[in-house]
Parts: sequence; structure tokens; C-alpha cells
Amino acid sequence: MARTRNPERAARDRHATLELPVSAAASVALPDPFALYRGGTLHGARIAYESWGRLNAARDNAILLFTGLSPSAHAAATELDPTPGWWQRMIGPNLAIDTSRHFVICVNSLGSCFGSTGPASVDPATGERYGVSFPELAVEDIASSAFAAVQALGIERLFAVVGASLGGMSVVAFAAQFPAAARRLITISGSAAASPFAIALRSVQREAILRDPDWQGGHYSPEHPPRSGMRLARKLGTITYRSAAELRQRFGREPLAGNARSLSQFAPRFAIEGYLETQAERFTRIFDPNCYLYLSSAMDRFDLAEHGGSAAAALRAVSSESVLVLGVESDMLFPIYEQAGIAEAFEQNGLPTRFVRLPSLEGHDAFLVDIPRFGAEIRRFLS
Amino acid sequence: MARTRNPERAARDRHATLELPVSAAASVALPDPFALYRGGTLHGARIAYESWGRLNAARDNAILLFTGLSPSAHAAATELDPTPGWWQRMIGPNLAIDTSRHFVICVNSLGSCFGSTGPASVDPATGERYGVSFPELAVEDIASSAFAAVQALGIERLFAVVGASLGGMSVVAFAAQFPAAARRLITISGSAAASPFAIALRSVQREAILRDPDWQGGHYSPEHPPRSGMRLARKLGTITYRSAAELRQRFGREPLAGNARSLSQFAPRFAIEGYLETQAERFTRIFDPNCYLYLSSAMDRFDLAEHGGSAAAALRAVSSESVLVLGVESDMLFPIYEQAGIAEAFEQNGLPTRFVRLPSLEGHDAFLVDIPRFGAEIRRFLS
Repeated sequence: MARTRNPERAARDRHATLELPVSAAASVALPDPFALYRGGTLHGARIAYESWGRLNAARDNAILLFTGLSPSAHAAATELDPTPGWWQRMIGPNLAIDTSRHFVICVNSLGSCFGSTGPASVDPATGERYGVSFPELAVEDIASSAFAAVQALGIERLFAVVGASLGGMSVVAFAAQFPAAARRLITISGSAAASPFAIALRSVQREAILRDPDWQGGHYSPEHPPRSGMRLARKLGTITYRSAAELRQRFGREPLAGNARSLSQFAPRFAIEGYLETQAERFTRIFDPNCYLYLSSAMDRFDLAEHGGSAAAALRAVSSESVLVLGVESDMLFPIYEQAGIAEAFEQNGLPTRFVRLPSLEGHDAFLVDIPRFGAEIRRFLS
Repeated sequence: MARTRNPERAARDRHATLELPVSAAASVALPDPFALYRGGTLHGARIAYESWGRLNAARDNAILLFTGLSPSAHAAATELDPTPGWWQRMIGPNLAIDTSRHFVICVNSLGSCFGSTGPASVDPATGERYGVSFPELAVEDIASSAFAAVQALGIERLFAVVGASLGGMSVVAFAAQFPAAARRLITISGSAAASPFAIALRSVQREAILRDPDWQGGHYSPEHPPRSGMRLARKLGTITYRSAAELRQRFGREPLAGNARSLSQFAPRFAIEGYLETQAERFTRIFDPNCYLYLSSAMDRFDLAEHGGSAAAALRAVSSESVLVLGVESDMLFPIYEQAGIAEAFEQNGLPTRFVRLPSLEGHDAFLVDIPRFGAEIRRFLS
């Protein structure tokens, strides 16, 4: 399937997101109005996506890929954007997600800022950016908007639905809402309901943004976003996305290169602090703070048990042929017992479920870097 | 021994710390000048302390107690301050630290703000608060100033030196600097050198304060301290002082009581967020932000191996009769392998060392709350 591009829309997105990088993603219109899970409604909303491989004539070889909180739809290089994507070594011809057999679609989450409609987009009703007037976003909306997007591309049933982190939550939200729409499900380092530890960390991240005077009640100008708050939020995220053991191995107590004596006494001293700086600077340049707040809050509120009283009840109608649940033993943010809980909920409904506890050192982010372990499991499951 | 009180000094402290609560602690003068480990010098410095029990005629029954980063010297109720102290159930007649046998002295750390000299104190050279002109503080200074204080009270050798968290670091810094000054050592949930994970978390806590516009480069007025930054720092601390498992058990996904719909969409929703609020509000009212920055930085830089090339070398001259090292398996901030490392360093020097991994659920803070487990170990070791 050729990717549709709408130059007018691209120009509008460019205006709406201002300093945000222009995505090479195509986009499709959502049904108008588009009803949200917690009661709001969007008009003229769109979902940005990138794709790899070709949809077959039977339209039954498509894989839908959800992202974590922060990535764009650029999961791998494309003709339009040859830079490496966030899952570059996982998606391609003969790779674990094999684009010689499958048509892979990665969506930018509804509420994000890489081409999909979100708080950084222009509200057609006002001609101004939504900002904090954007309706409350739920993980369910990320799932339902993505399904609407693939339906708009002519796909009614997916060969597989895949996601990690927030994407892993989105997969189970997808399954609960569209129980017959995916032959296979892969949920990685996800959760059926955020833990108080994760809620606590995210609430501190959000508070760092909310208390940054530059946030301006959500009405910051794109030229002066709340950078300090975003930096703190991202640094804290970066710490919890890895494991203490990995940080110890990678950084130890190495001093920060080039740390001059002339700097303030509280300036970074250790290499680990330089790593956090790099991560925070990169993220702060490209991610919209209000989008961050909405997506972060959606993760806190997500509770699969809202769909029928329990996680198992939520998945009762799921007719997928098989389910793969992956988790990482060193994940402090989405601890392994949460993936065990997801697997159990599928199993209670008699669904063939493979649950794997991976011993990766890299914590919550392991799916991004431990490609050998994750790739082997995903390849086997999809073939 | 009767506690000395100096009304003039108390008035000066009250002025120096302004909004900080007036401590019931007595204080003793440090040698003047008092040389600091990393090169600075203090004049007219004092150490605040509280004490329980009586020093015997041989002056050999004294126990020196170091605190964590945030507490005052008020470890237990006294006649002057009958409110419960931070280790109330641990210290008293016939308790684990038995004040019917021992004279217990708890010091407020040098650099803190509860009566001891620190950044919130008035610099006698200028008549102004030190603020960020305070010289760099090291854990070694907390140890050496405390020893100078007990020497000023007429004590040359301690029956025991005890501390947890920063206090656990202070105990090993004490041992390295005064290897013959303590018959017994108890170091709890401490570290011989901060891990990159702990450094990363503390650097984010400090950055929250440093980036708060109210910090004013360290020159905030006591009426307008950087409260937002302190709130964030304390909330993050609170999260990491406990364990995810304990938060899950205590709070689960309980909604916050009284959370009104009229509040902002980003207002706290969950009980865990209310807990963080309470902790942050309490701390922000009583703790000086510059003191926090100095103590936090001192913890990052502490590395016992600076004393001779390795932790074991640092403890080579220690002549203590026995050592107790306690750690908690659920501690994410000072993980159990760090206490194992401390124990190993003592053992390599042939010192009789008992190392206990406690299965408490409460993480780094367990020593404050799991009194049955900690008390049993400490009681047995001291008797």
C-alpha cells in the first residue's frame, strides 16, 4: 500500500507544532467526531503513521505497532526518512518483525506531538493550539484511534498488534476494546494498571513541569516551553527506564569529562550526570510539555479492570490465536509481576499465552537495546 | 553529664535559621579554626546534640549516633523536648540502645540546619548567612566534627558509633579517620561510595532546587525559599526511601480522599500522591535548601576508598572489637550489595563483623519503622 501524503495537512502540522521536528510520517483522518473514552470529543483529528513492507491482496498481513510514551512513528528507516528508527534492528526484511512478509504500521499515539492530534495541535474550533483544553486522554483512546487509522487504510483484522511500555498497555487496551481484531498479540514491559510506585514517579515528573513558571498554566509559548520542568521529568524518567545494575556497569563513579573547576560547586561531577543531561536536552527539544502531561496522566489512570471488573474479565471476549507477554526482571518501573498479571489474565480466558521473563540488565528500556533476546522471542512468535 | 546550654548561642541560632524550628539541642564549640576535609575552614562552628542516659565515671559508656540526611539530633524524647524522636522506640531504658547502661549522644550533622553550623548559619566573618559561600562539606567532616564534639564533652573513646543511611556512611568515615576511637561500630543501610543510581537521583533532586527561580543562586530570603524545588526533591526522596512493594501494599491504586472534580485535571488523583504531598510539605517547612544541597552533594562525593586506595585499605587501622553491618533487601537507594561491600572491607582487615540482610519491606527507611528486626540485632550486638 502506498502511503498517503497530504501537503496541506503537513503544512498545518508544521504550524501547529512549531519548534517540533516535522515528521516524515503520513497521516490519516479519524472519524469526525472522534469520541474519547472518558467523554471528550475531537474534530478533524488525525493519526500519523509510518509503514514498512506491503499489504497483501488479502489484507491480512498487517502488524500494528504502538510506541512508548516518547517515540514518534519512526520505528525504522524509510525512504522519506532514512535516519535509524527507535526499533531499527527489529523491523526490516528478515528481521524479527519481517517486512518481507508483513506490512508493518507504527502509529504516533493520539495525544503525542509527532503528527498525530494532541494538545500541541491546533483546535479547528478556535484556530489555537489545544493546550490544556484538550479533552482527557486515555490509553483506550490511543488504542481505538490507532485501530480507526488502520481501518482507514483498509485493514479490518491485524495479523498482530505489538507494543512495549505504554505500547504494552495500549495492546491490552486494544484487545479489551476490539477483541476480534488481532490474530496475535505481543505486549512487552506493559501493565494492566499502573502501580503506586510508577504513579508516584510520574506525578513528580508532572509536578516538575506544572511548577515550572514557564508552564504558564499550560499556555506557554512554543518559544518558551517549561524547559526546566521537562529536563527534570526526563532525567527522572531516564533513571527509572534503566536499572541500577546497568548504570553501575556503564558509568560506575567515573567523573564527568571536561568538568571544569570554574563551574558551580553544584555542577555535575559524574559521568552518569552527563548522560542524564544528554537525554534531557534531546527530549526537551522535541517533545511538547502538555502532550507529556496528557500521556503521563493517561498511564496513571489506565486500569484494564475498568472493562468488566477485572483484567481477566476485560479480556474475556478476546479471540486471538496466541499471545506473547514479555517482561524484564530488572524493570523497576513496570516490574515483572505486572507482565505476569497480564499473562495470567489471558490464560484465565483459555488463550494460548507465552510469558517470558527476560534477564536483560537494561530494565524497562531493555526492549530498545537487548535486541538479541527480544528479537528471538518475537521472531519465533510471529513465524 | 548535665547538658550545657548557652542562651546567647540559642538566640543566635534562632536568628540564623529564622523560620526553622528552634531545636532543644544543646551545642558545643568545635576547635577554632575547624579544618574541613576538602580544604575549607570554619570559625566559631558548633555542633548541636541531644543526649540520653548518664556518662559513667570511667567515661567509657558513650554511644555516638549519626543521623540520616534530614533528621535533627532529636532521636528520642528528652526533658526539654518531650515530643517523640526519630528513633523513639530504639533509644531508652531497656530498649535496644539502652540508656540505663549507656550515655547516648545524637549529633546534628555539620552542614545541617538544626543547631549545628551549616549553610543556614551566620558566618561570623560577615554577619550574614553562609548560604553558598559555605565551604564544601564532606561526609568526613560530619564524622570529624561529631568526634570533636564528643571530645569537647570529655569523651575520648566511644563504646559504640552508630548510624543509618548518611549516618551509615558517617560511621565508616569515622572509622577511617579515628580507627581507635570506637569499641564497636554499627553501620546501617550505608554505603562506602554512592552508586551512579543514587547519584543520578540526588542530582535530579538538587537540580529541582537549583532551577527553582526562588533559589536565587543560593541567595533566597528565608521567607521565600525555593519551595517548589524542595517539594520535588523531597517527593522523589520519599519514593526512593521506601520500596515499590511497600507502596503497593499501603496504597495500591486507592483514590485520594477528597479529590474534588473542581481541581485541575493534573491534580493528584491517588492516595500515594497525597502521601508524597504530606511528606513534602512537612520537610519543606523545616529544612534549609542550601543545607540540603551541601549534604546531598557530600553523599555523592563520599568514597571511602579515598582513604588509602580501597575501602579495605581505608579501614586497615581500625581496632574496634566488633562491627555490625545491617542492610535491607528491599533498599533501592543503598542496595544490599553496598552493605555487603562494607562488611567485606571490615572482614578483610580481620575485624569480627556481623552482616545481616534484613527482609524488611520498607526499603531504605526500614531502620525507622521495622524496629522489631533492627532492634533485635542492635540489642544483641550492644549487650
